[in-house]
Amino acid sequence: MPSLSRRTFLVSTTGAFAATGVASTTTIAFGQDGSLPAYAAWKDGEAMIVHSNNTIETRRDAIGAPSVTPTRELFVRNNLPPPSEEIVADRDAWTVAFEGVANPREMTLGELRGLGVVTVPAVLQCSGNGRAFFDHEASGTQWSVGAAGDILWTGVPLRAVIDAMGGPAEGARFLTVTGGEELPAGIDPLTVLVERSVPIEAVDEALLAYGMNGEDLSLAHGGPLRLVVPGYFGVNNVKYVKRVALTPEESPAAIQQTGYRLRPVGEKGAPTQPSMWQMSVKSWVTEPLADASSGRILIQGVAMGGMASVEGVEVSTDGGETWQEATLTGPDLGAYAWRPFALSAELQPGTYLVASRATAGGETQPETFEPNERGYGHNGWRAHAVEITVV
Amino acid sequence: MPSLSRRTFLVSTTGAFAATGVASTTTIAFGQDGSLPAYAAWKDGEAMIVHSNNTIETRRDAIGAPSVTPTRELFVRNNLPPPSEEIVADRDAWTVAFEGVANPREMTLGELRGLGVVTVPAVLQCSGNGRAFFDHEASGTQWSVGAAGDILWTGVPLRAVIDAMGGPAEGARFLTVTGGEELPAGIDPLTVLVERSVPIEAVDEALLAYGMNGEDLSLAHGGPLRLVVPGYFGVNNVKYVKRVALTPEESPAAIQQTGYRLRPVGEKGAPTQPSMWQMSVKSWVTEPLADASSGRILIQGVAMGGMASVEGVEVSTDGGETWQEATLTGPDLGAYAWRPFALSAELQPGTYLVASRATAGGETQPETFEPNERGYGHNGWRAHAVEITVV
Repeated sequence: MPSLSRRTFLVSTTGAFAATGVASTTTIAFGQDGSLPAYAAWKDGEAMIVHSNNTIETRRDAIGAPSVTPTRELFVRNNLPPPSEEIVADRDAWTVAFEGVANPREMTLGELRGLGVVTVPAVLQCSGNGRAFFDHEASGTQWSVGAAGDILWTGVPLRAVIDAMGGPAEGARFLTVTGGEELPAGIDPLTVLVERSVPIEAVDEALLAYGMNGEDLSLAHGGPLRLVVPGYFGVNNVKYVKRVALTPEESPAAIQQTGYRLRPVGEKGAPTQPSMWQMSVKSWVTEPLADASSGRILIQGVAMGGMASVEGVEVSTDGGETWQEATLTGPDLGAYAWRPFALSAELQPGTYLVASRATAGGETQPETFEPNERGYGHNGWRAHAVEITVV
Repeated sequence: MPSLSRRTFLVSTTGAFAATGVASTTTIAFGQDGSLPAYAAWKDGEAMIVHSNNTIETRRDAIGAPSVTPTRELFVRNNLPPPSEEIVADRDAWTVAFEGVANPREMTLGELRGLGVVTVPAVLQCSGNGRAFFDHEASGTQWSVGAAGDILWTGVPLRAVIDAMGGPAEGARFLTVTGGEELPAGIDPLTVLVERSVPIEAVDEALLAYGMNGEDLSLAHGGPLRLVVPGYFGVNNVKYVKRVALTPEESPAAIQQTGYRLRPVGEKGAPTQPSMWQMSVKSWVTEPLADASSGRILIQGVAMGGMASVEGVEVSTDGGETWQEATLTGPDLGAYAWRPFALSAELQPGTYLVASRATAGGETQPETFEPNERGYGHNGWRAHAVEITVV
């Protein structure tokens, strides 16, 4: 388990900037009829909110409190449309170029499989999960809590691959991975290329994943091969991996240089701003969400530590005036996984503001989270609270 | 975690009886066309072997090495045809009678949910898993290794329910649970009733499960409500639970009195024989199973401890003459779960007998397992080995 000192960036309420109050006017395209796109037609439609063809959220009332998110209910977020289904027809033939190592070469997925295997439980969460809870109308998909799920990833330990190629080349400081999406013609590729860099230390925990929850990784989720950096926000987990490079600098792609940068509202993205890398402690209630009958009520939800196992979760039914320790109802699946929780409460008729607050790695979820231009990283417990009416 | 001293029955190679050599002549009905029955039509047909409408096995080459078995690939074994799908239409209305407690009463599933929730990873395995590896043609479905899976069960801790009803009645020694299947007319109900008893100590770990792998428990697997006794063979995990009783004696049903009793070949079942309760340490290779290309090969499989976490798995490529320690490739999900393993081996062209041997709770899987009348509990490593040809 990585120590906290390895955290490169921790989203916190004590950020170095304050809200500017400048609301973004950017808009995004939404799906017209709310139906699932073809590449994700196998999803449980009743559990999903289709924001657009590339952004599909799990409904808050469909999350439940699972230790592992069912694949059919996992959110989808693509930065570009997925490649053709043809790329998962012959998975083992998929090739990946490795660069920035002592002995650069290409390997097929079939060859990679022979180098080792590991299964890692880890939360996949979009940087913008919780965007809807900001007041400043940050541009982008208005995710509530459903752009997250806890997954059993199976794949090749990246460390084993790098070792097999003689280790990192001199001067390597970042792990830079490139997706295999087809790029739209007629524009500078760097403005749309899905290529992300994370600190090279991530190699120790990262995997090239070909399996999700015990099944072949679907096209919708990056199959045949996807990078998984446990504990890091979704965008770093590059899909359809075509190139893995250990580089002296971060990727020149816009998605790295100016995209996914935490910054005050109204500011443009810049490489000097914190990148959306490591995730923070967070939790949310999943049931009940609206009405409940008076008596003994089981309040449930899920809690994640980002880079550390959840130590505990408190639940409040009075908007944070008082808190009670919840029970962690599932097994501890490690530092990168989430954990369901429950609190049995005796509630009389009335209105309640139900909140949860997790602690992990010595850090407790903050009450509020500073607004930021793109609405990233919200983990403030107050905005995630739900008002329920007990009758 | 329960200590080993709590083991009520441990399948072992040093049983108190020897094979008699009398082969059973009983036969069972097999499905005619190998297609999935309607109640399990949602299963992954390519991953399954349909032995009959009530016995559906996961193909050995479809198991892979998952930490948790995908629900679509989990085996099915029913002792009676499942009830109508109507019983899962309004899950919360399902009623269960509780007896043998200080304050007996009925509760609906909706009420039960309020008493608490827990998620427990545990292997579900038919008593007859491995029956095909006996030489004496034991009657019953000829399961190979695919009547087993590792599942995330979610439900109400049975201890919380019993406590809410004032605790066990005087003299209670067994947990006796009755299934809600419709019984065929015209025969003594006790000959077909699905009612099983386990030692009352099992209450501490048992749950009334309504969820499997984060989704509602399907009818095929006992929904809306099923007993799960972690570490116990499948038959004890009664489906469609209608009655939960703490009883002074074991159930009078044939399935308890004479069925699922470990006994020498040729002997009739009797209550004095060991009941198929707690499971033992076991493992099996899942890939490769036939041909492989020479070079570095990843040998994979799954290992379970029964009532104890897997401590280690050894793999042999020469039929047990030499062994190498395999890597446990997934997280430790607790005493009742299985764990995938892998060994990277450099194999030249030739024929290899690949075996695995797990250790858990201080016990190592035996080489052989004594024949027994019904072919229960096989965990001998030699019979589970696979011959592969490397070209």
